[in-house]
Amino acid sequence: MRMRKKPNLIPRMEACSDIWVREPEEMRGKWLEKYPDAAALHLEVGCGKGKFTAETAALHPEILFVAMERVPEAMVMAMEKVKNAGLGNVFFIGEDVAGIRDFFAPGEVDLLYINFCDPWPHKKHASRRLTHAGFLALYKSVLKPGAEIHFKTDNAGLFEFSLEQFASCGFRLKNVTHDLHKDGPVGIMTGYEEKFYQLGTPICRLEAVYEEDTNGDQCEDTDCG
Amino acid sequence: MRMRKKPNLIPRMEACSDIWVREPEEMRGKWLEKYPDAAALHLEVGCGKGKFTAETAALHPEILFVAMERVPEAMVMAMEKVKNAGLGNVFFIGEDVAGIRDFFAPGEVDLLYINFCDPWPHKKHASRRLTHAGFLALYKSVLKPGAEIHFKTDNAGLFEFSLEQFASCGFRLKNVTHDLHKDGPVGIMTGYEEKFYQLGTPICRLEAVYEEDTNGDQCEDTDCG
Repeated sequence: MRMRKKPNLIPRMEACSDIWVREPEEMRGKWLEKYPDAAALHLEVGCGKGKFTAETAALHPEILFVAMERVPEAMVMAMEKVKNAGLGNVFFIGEDVAGIRDFFAPGEVDLLYINFCDPWPHKKHASRRLTHAGFLALYKSVLKPGAEIHFKTDNAGLFEFSLEQFASCGFRLKNVTHDLHKDGPVGIMTGYEEKFYQLGTPICRLEAVYEEDTNGDQCEDTDCG
Repeated sequence: MRMRKKPNLIPRMEACSDIWVREPEEMRGKWLEKYPDAAALHLEVGCGKGKFTAETAALHPEILFVAMERVPEAMVMAMEKVKNAGLGNVFFIGEDVAGIRDFFAPGEVDLLYINFCDPWPHKKHASRRLTHAGFLALYKSVLKPGAEIHFKTDNAGLFEFSLEQFASCGFRLKNVTHDLHKDGPVGIMTGYEEKFYQLGTPICRLEAVYEEDTNGDQCEDTDCG
């Protein structure tokens, strides 16, 4: 996400210091301490300006949400949305998804959201796509067996690529659709999604179930890892 | 097109002053003087970094190309491509497409290219889309009767919108495809298109023929204008 520079970025970030986790390594394996009554931990990678995050968290006070976003100009807007809504169940990590194993313990995450990630269309950038097998292997190391990844995109090329990547890494796919809102709006939309829905651009969505391989993590030793 | 600031932008622009037309109003109705042997004038609105422009112009030395781009950081790259290729049949206008009637006389343009324009997905921004009826009416006032508009996009929502707009403004549509490169690469790709083609994103394309309405310009008095 490319955004205009925000002159008051630092003070605005500081004002959200209660929900901005600056040392996420220290929370590894202990996230539920932040919200002890939580029934589960849901993680969003690349939350952008946080419309989906805040609306989803408001609907699910029983869930602890952690949102990652590496673009500070976006994350500050997401944090402000959460604070303005008075939500106590959302925390933010302003780091790259690549570090996810340092921030979460194995099995700590119950559900992972990937919404409208950068398609990185050039072939040589394929490994930067957040649904590339390399990232899927990272996610597996923090997901609970039986946990799910919910992925949305408006890019049909990225969606086909992702279907292959999830399948090759042993995820079980379900509720796969190439036109999520065909019969009217479904679920909570991201800000980006809402605009493209208005334009009539079809939105693709899938759910991928992490079924632990009894022979070990099959992504570790293949091209998935 | 949003781009990084280029520190040497001004001197680089100046170095292209032979192909950068700073006062395009003065060329109105006289573009062929720039390239007297030209068989036709082709106009590209929003040429970006100019891959399509330069490659198309190199293949067609019999055509005079004019390329419009309002983002200087992109246009300078397009101009440099054209100069490096030693082409003498391409000129640039660094102005907004909205001013097109001031730059071209009625009937001066034989073919108009719109490649991967900004989809402006939000409903309230629909009139900014370069295939909105408002723009189509502008194009009509510079197109020769029988001239064509060739439009490409990877956004299926924008494409459906555009099909409606062209039809409602009296253009005759032909060679409409929702997956241009289905059976392998077709025609010259833009830089953007090449990357999305690699990803497998379907590219939509249409050709719209401007058939002069004997009852006058039907867009003038309807919601097309």
